[in-house]
Amino acid sequence: MALIVQKYGGSSLADAERIQAVARRIAATQTRGDQVVAVCSAMGDATDDLLALARKIMPHPEGRELDVLLSTGEMVSCALVAMALNAVPCPAVSLTGQQAGIQAGGFFGKGLIAAIEPQRVLKELEAGRVVVVAGFQGVSEDMDVMTLGRGGSDVTAVALAAALKAERCEIYTDVAGIYTADPRVVPEARKLPELDYEEMLELAAYGAKMQPRSIELAELYNVPMLVASSFTDTPGTAIRREVSMEVRERVRGVVYDLNVAKITVQSVPDRPGVAATLFEPLAAAGVSVDTIVQNASIDRTTDLSFTVARTDVRRALEVVKPVAERIHARGVTSNDALGKVSIVGTGMQFAPGYAARMFRTLADAGVNIEMITTSEIRITCIVNEAQVHEAVRTLHRAFRLEASGASK
Amino acid sequence: MALIVQKYGGSSLADAERIQAVARRIAATQTRGDQVVAVCSAMGDATDDLLALARKIMPHPEGRELDVLLSTGEMVSCALVAMALNAVPCPAVSLTGQQAGIQAGGFFGKGLIAAIEPQRVLKELEAGRVVVVAGFQGVSEDMDVMTLGRGGSDVTAVALAAALKAERCEIYTDVAGIYTADPRVVPEARKLPELDYEEMLELAAYGAKMQPRSIELAELYNVPMLVASSFTDTPGTAIRREVSMEVRERVRGVVYDLNVAKITVQSVPDRPGVAATLFEPLAAAGVSVDTIVQNASIDRTTDLSFTVARTDVRRALEVVKPVAERIHARGVTSNDALGKVSIVGTGMQFAPGYAARMFRTLADAGVNIEMITTSEIRITCIVNEAQVHEAVRTLHRAFRLEASGASK
Repeated sequence: MALIVQKYGGSSLADAERIQAVARRIAATQTRGDQVVAVCSAMGDATDDLLALARKIMPHPEGRELDVLLSTGEMVSCALVAMALNAVPCPAVSLTGQQAGIQAGGFFGKGLIAAIEPQRVLKELEAGRVVVVAGFQGVSEDMDVMTLGRGGSDVTAVALAAALKAERCEIYTDVAGIYTADPRVVPEARKLPELDYEEMLELAAYGAKMQPRSIELAELYNVPMLVASSFTDTPGTAIRREVSMEVRERVRGVVYDLNVAKITVQSVPDRPGVAATLFEPLAAAGVSVDTIVQNASIDRTTDLSFTVARTDVRRALEVVKPVAERIHARGVTSNDALGKVSIVGTGMQFAPGYAARMFRTLADAGVNIEMITTSEIRITCIVNEAQVHEAVRTLHRAFRLEASGASK
Repeated sequence: MALIVQKYGGSSLADAERIQAVARRIAATQTRGDQVVAVCSAMGDATDDLLALARKIMPHPEGRELDVLLSTGEMVSCALVAMALNAVPCPAVSLTGQQAGIQAGGFFGKGLIAAIEPQRVLKELEAGRVVVVAGFQGVSEDMDVMTLGRGGSDVTAVALAAALKAERCEIYTDVAGIYTADPRVVPEARKLPELDYEEMLELAAYGAKMQPRSIELAELYNVPMLVASSFTDTPGTAIRREVSMEVRERVRGVVYDLNVAKITVQSVPDRPGVAATLFEPLAAAGVSVDTIVQNASIDRTTDLSFTVARTDVRRALEVVKPVAERIHARGVTSNDALGKVSIVGTGMQFAPGYAARMFRTLADAGVNIEMITTSEIRITCIVNEAQVHEAVRTLHRAFRLEASGASK
């Protein structure tokens, strides 16, 4: 008998029929002899509807009351899932974040889980019940409801799996798993049977819907995960520390992001402290900077480029232009019609040739590379937005990702 | 500086505009220098909508999960009211039943308040905040949400007023107060400026919307109440132990009920235990019996009549007919086209003549009386349904209730 934590997203719980389908899936797991803790998000658009209601009262509702309001969405879905389970019949009980012992710290609207005291969860499991836990919420030191921010229900599920020493944390969503590339762009994209946490981090951050924080947490506590569809019985993608040896050191997927803009500060004096002078005010203005590239110095000046989300360009330029003048840079240029294409795979840094093959593939396809960055398991090229989809398809073919057990 | 508990019903909170109007009303009370605890019901039809959602999952949802589900309705309205107050600006905080220390016992769906530990409420009041408390809910010994059944938000308000030793509990609703009769039936009906608890109990039970349990609780803890409209600034009706001497021993109002059916068991042997034999199985079948009249015995048999809600007639007859046969009664008849008309006023039992005047008035108007019952402060006649409205109008005129300071 194993303990499984399952997390169901809002689209899996959008109406009474889907809730009943989720209940049957949970009950089937219990019938196989496992204990189940089911973490639920709010139904369909419930959170957006509550947010819209709050904004009719005031444009920027304050955090504490907004958290009370939004937390009701998960209470509703959990109560309904527990009812549907009891109707199967499969004995079940719903618990709020507070009842499940999820203690949160930090700020309203973006709480962080500080600790889990799962006594009540364990008591209910011992009594033979499925425990349905409200995702996305905890209780603060002052005993107030605190929501956990973006991806909060995934974090609830992983944290509960860690605290309960569950065998696995299963994330059920409306996609069947993690693919070698976006199937809408690459029709021959293949679902990956398994990934390690690092690869999943890159794939999630660059296009998939899971937030990095839940994957990082799973890695930290070594919680094996499964990402699968709640609408089908196909196997999904397993995520764990050790993937089989034969699939290591391979390109696992191609990911992209269309929301990219580049800002270049030209002929910046190449002396200590210049980068800080530029990026400190950007951080203060709440602009999140992604890739930063500084070219080699020529005659004691250098071009410094960085990318930001397209929606942040205007704000970033307002901050950067006066700073550029003050440090006597030659000028500031920007391009907001860019995109990002990355190949992802563990061990690429120890196996030369991946980067060269990526650049050659893009060159052969007539795709110009604006910037390049790399991490341990990712090589990213910034290219023209109009060429992003073609670049993804070309790279998917070049690394033969459509074939199982592919590509060196 | 006084502490005032205000309760706002669902129709007063039906949309964002009404919530903002309620916030302005609360803020005005605070501006006058009073501390305010505001108990809120769920918005408009929110509770019915949640119930409909649950019934899509299962026809008879179990109590515990239904209580979790329904309790979210009050959390939503409270969070929105607190936001609207903060926007005024008037510092406010919303509290769930649990956070407000409302401890409930009994059964899910019909919890009873066992105790209130109002430390958090007091702390927030001392910090200068309006405290917005979710009505209709408490927390059980097992730390589960438990709703308080019909009229539960009124009970929350009265119980908090008692626990906090508030100066007054104000019930805001969509009517301007308690009237001498239903204004839809009697156009000249007059709003009563004050009532005592006993009178309010009769008036609430026979037509007004408040449940007797909150009024009984207010009387027990001697909490002065005010029933008023949240849509106007008219004064409402004050309810307290001591009304002014000059309005005592008067008829205060005429109330009616159209949902009445009479069942008569004919020629019942007049011996001990017969009534119990009849009414025990009715209670077991969940049929609530209202008025019971047993005529004087003639030749050792008697006719025994009682009234039930019209919707219970079929079930009551199914229970009564076999019992009547067993005790050798002559037969069972029923009439489900009846209504009830009552005059209400403290001290009527010590002042002869009210009953006679009521019967004479009805006789002059051609209204036949089917049954009569009296309490300390009420005289009730069961009459034909078709004549109920005319009976109410005639009695209102006969006791001159349209005139302020009326009628001996």
